[in-house]
Amino acid sequence: MTLAMLINGQPSKLLRADDRGLQYGDGLFETVLLAHGRVRFLDDHLRRLFAGCDRLGINAPDAATLRGEIAQVTAGRDRGVLKIIVTRGAGGRGYRPSNAMASTRVVALYPFNPSPQAGLRLRWCEIRLGRNARLAGIKHLNRLEQVLAQSEWQEGEADEGVMLDTEGEVVCATSANVFAVRDGVLVTPDLRFCGVQGVMRAQVLKAAARLRLTASEEPLWPHDLETASEVFITNAVRGIRSVASLDSLQWSETGVATRMANALSLSEP
Amino acid sequence: MTLAMLINGQPSKLLRADDRGLQYGDGLFETVLLAHGRVRFLDDHLRRLFAGCDRLGINAPDAATLRGEIAQVTAGRDRGVLKIIVTRGAGGRGYRPSNAMASTRVVALYPFNPSPQAGLRLRWCEIRLGRNARLAGIKHLNRLEQVLAQSEWQEGEADEGVMLDTEGEVVCATSANVFAVRDGVLVTPDLRFCGVQGVMRAQVLKAAARLRLTASEEPLWPHDLETASEVFITNAVRGIRSVASLDSLQWSETGVATRMANALSLSEP
Repeated sequence: MTLAMLINGQPSKLLRADDRGLQYGDGLFETVLLAHGRVRFLDDHLRRLFAGCDRLGINAPDAATLRGEIAQVTAGRDRGVLKIIVTRGAGGRGYRPSNAMASTRVVALYPFNPSPQAGLRLRWCEIRLGRNARLAGIKHLNRLEQVLAQSEWQEGEADEGVMLDTEGEVVCATSANVFAVRDGVLVTPDLRFCGVQGVMRAQVLKAAARLRLTASEEPLWPHDLETASEVFITNAVRGIRSVASLDSLQWSETGVATRMANALSLSEP
Repeated sequence: MTLAMLINGQPSKLLRADDRGLQYGDGLFETVLLAHGRVRFLDDHLRRLFAGCDRLGINAPDAATLRGEIAQVTAGRDRGVLKIIVTRGAGGRGYRPSNAMASTRVVALYPFNPSPQAGLRLRWCEIRLGRNARLAGIKHLNRLEQVLAQSEWQEGEADEGVMLDTEGEVVCATSANVFAVRDGVLVTPDLRFCGVQGVMRAQVLKAAARLRLTASEEPLWPHDLETASEVFITNAVRGIRSVASLDSLQWSETGVATRMANALSLSEP
């Protein structure tokens, strides 16, 4: 399934079973697009990865080493999905982390599977996201909530699901951030309690500033989507995708999403 | 570090790096005591493991196969800590689980490290537990909250930490359940939003019924510990342990904990 994989710099598809990434989900990941032979927004992905290491107290890998491994795995490839996992490391038993532990690096390239460009059909997820400000924003490996969310529908029944937190705030789609246009203002959940600070989300917020479009990160509620004139979702691999429906809600506007995609020169790989 | 390890029945210490246990913490685990050559409360551990598989939609391993692997790993050993991990399986990319996936089994034996029998010194953890009823009770692999909790103190500064959820309810210790005696009644958090339904916790509740001691699973708040006459914590490996202090709170009573340990014929391995 993988086109190439390096574990701690060595070609391998096997990891120590006592790695804390497996034992406790004690690590982080990044999913990055390789398009036209270039790794898109790599600096942003690495910045978030290292910020996550810092937040969890994981010894960050050497940046030059990691970049070298990424270059090796993507060499000669035109397109694909690059997945980077960094865990706290292997060994020991029990939750207590050791400061001395060397982190584990998994750098893998997967095939890119194009998805339809038409407006997406979304649904509300039943499972809620637990709130924990200490884990909010970073892309850690504790993802059971997203796994259960995606198992709520069969492939083909919907393109994505929108997740609320346990208090009913809108947070994200299962693997994308959510934006709404309301009275000409671009809004997106502030992710102070849960959700991932997406790389594409940050690019959209920066592009909005350049385009002089007012954008706001704030608490969002289902009502804010119900009253939106346009909705789109963002993901580092799939880009900016207009939303056509969310259960019974429907949108035909795609103007802001299109302006953003043009401003960011996004194109399918 | 491990004394023996089987992965899907084969002696190995390596796991496929595309296993969903690593990718998303998409799995479950059990930590079981091997004492005097016997695996303690194994039926209860397997029952919880299979209940967890059912809750997460993971294809449960064949029980006879798993029992055979446990017998193989513990054969000829007098004592140790048996750790069983079951993940949804390996392969694919993306959160969506496949129904057809065969689960992964890791069965490993670790050395048992005895800990002091004296009353434990506990502290309040700063990190809170996010609430999610869908994940409450089962022993899944998403354990970053516990990892961060245990990193709040240095080894030797305290024996355990008590965790509250985001609303301030008492839930558990980082790797144990919590009991308090209040006005002669045994109380323990009901774990409806988070925490693990411990195997030793269930044994204590059963023993209380046999001893005609009123016991109640209910929402517990810090005030309930502050006004308790006795506090103890329970864990399948370490048994029932009296608590001497929780930051500035102190207890000298150990009567109920002792009666429980006697009723369950618990002894150090």
